[in-house]
Amino acid sequence: MAESTSKETRVIDTIAAIRDAVQSERSAGRTIGLVPTMGALHAGHLRLVEASLHECDSTFVTIFVNPSQFAGGEDCSQYPRTLQADTDELARLGVQWVFAPAAGEIYPPGFSTHVDPPDEARRWEGVCRPTHFRGVATVVLKLFQIIPADVAFFGQKDYQQSVIVQRMAADFNLPIRIHICPTVRDKDGLAISSRNCYLSDEERCQAPSLFGCLNLAAEMFAAGERSAAKVTAHMRQALADAGVLRIEYVALVHPLTLEEVHLIDDTTIAIVAAYVGSTRLIDNRTMGR
Amino acid sequence: MAESTSKETRVIDTIAAIRDAVQSERSAGRTIGLVPTMGALHAGHLRLVEASLHECDSTFVTIFVNPSQFAGGEDCSQYPRTLQADTDELARLGVQWVFAPAAGEIYPPGFSTHVDPPDEARRWEGVCRPTHFRGVATVVLKLFQIIPADVAFFGQKDYQQSVIVQRMAADFNLPIRIHICPTVRDKDGLAISSRNCYLSDEERCQAPSLFGCLNLAAEMFAAGERSAAKVTAHMRQALADAGVLRIEYVALVHPLTLEEVHLIDDTTIAIVAAYVGSTRLIDNRTMGR
Repeated sequence: MAESTSKETRVIDTIAAIRDAVQSERSAGRTIGLVPTMGALHAGHLRLVEASLHECDSTFVTIFVNPSQFAGGEDCSQYPRTLQADTDELARLGVQWVFAPAAGEIYPPGFSTHVDPPDEARRWEGVCRPTHFRGVATVVLKLFQIIPADVAFFGQKDYQQSVIVQRMAADFNLPIRIHICPTVRDKDGLAISSRNCYLSDEERCQAPSLFGCLNLAAEMFAAGERSAAKVTAHMRQALADAGVLRIEYVALVHPLTLEEVHLIDDTTIAIVAAYVGSTRLIDNRTMGR
Repeated sequence: MAESTSKETRVIDTIAAIRDAVQSERSAGRTIGLVPTMGALHAGHLRLVEASLHECDSTFVTIFVNPSQFAGGEDCSQYPRTLQADTDELARLGVQWVFAPAAGEIYPPGFSTHVDPPDEARRWEGVCRPTHFRGVATVVLKLFQIIPADVAFFGQKDYQQSVIVQRMAADFNLPIRIHICPTVRDKDGLAISSRNCYLSDEERCQAPSLFGCLNLAAEMFAAGERSAAKVTAHMRQALADAGVLRIEYVALVHPLTLEEVHLIDDTTIAIVAAYVGSTRLIDNRTMGR
């Protein structure tokens, strides 16, 4: 029996108890990794968990479907909730601490302080989902205070979120290191997401076109094309050819400011958000490498 | 020579160095008290410092005139700056660590994440100074991250600020205790403030009328009056009688929500903001005791 599976996985739902757990790990001199998730764990999350297990002595995974990052009409209520399966999977990996609070534990009556997220939140997802990053930044700040880890792990798949969390950590002097892990993809290139479960078979066949259009951009750049306007036009066409017609944005952006660029270089990030059927998917990739 | 004066007082201006200092105190097992100030230290601040010295093993005083809590047209540029005198006074008291950063250390280029303060910030000072508490809450959060103390000390004189800081600490799960210290007053009752130095001799004679009108409210309450409308009318008249005509607000409010009350009880707080000459002063007192 591997040592990792011999540890008991504890699922904790109160702030007081998870703080005690952090304190006990700290007192034992262990470094702490934090993996904030909304549950419905998939290979993308597990990559974050593995990075934390590798890098830190003790790993805390949080599972909280944060209502404040969903707008009215979004999928908060039907967002997949699979706590038992999630916990089993985390136990298998050897995660010792899972924090799965109820909404009232995180947002008690009278709660009204928020993070006003950085300028990078105003673009792209911030246009399509105006209150999303305010909700994300607020809950991430809270989780960082509840579980004061050495390192927190986020996925590159939510690229804009990763930029915003890093900017918030810098702006607020948060004493935590942010580790961004690469996107995990299915064999056909579709970025793994908890929302992929909403896709019908037909939609699932269309969905890899998001990664396809990002790769097309990288190929055009590798072949010498530098015009963002030309490349994004081809990306849009590639999505349309695949039957993805409801595009929210396709853009080539600066990796830190997220401002749209006119001329592409190898630091440029291609980003896309589009509906496949009624499911909104996002993806991104760098033009370098 | 008292032990307190035998310690060297270190004035530090970089985040990295003050973090090292906090770490060294923590490693030695010492508890840490934080007293955030804008300098121009007076007896009100020194009361906070003394509370910290009494309660904590190691006291960190920050001196930072935070530009983001002043609006255009306010007194940021002429706010008194007396770093050498402040440091001498803190050395005399036995404070070991002073953090006095330049504005660029706290707000480097690209800084753009803020705290959107709680609902309690929308009233009173928040109406008169709409961006004030956003600036206060943001810098306080940053200082709490830079100097992760066990306890932070604030004065009751800035009553609304004390409510907002406590609400933010609760809402963001900040692992710090907030200790509110009583207002320190001159012999004639004027709440001690760095801004009192702006007052002419004549204005200095008018200024105690702020505390006078608060005491009048308490006397009316003690005599059985419960109507907030009647009491505030008398408070306004008392200010006018003293020559204080530019009143920003006079109110009787709930101690936590800061909502105006109709019927006074012994938890009610009387608050006042008024100009004496061109100097804006604030004060408050409870109706109890």
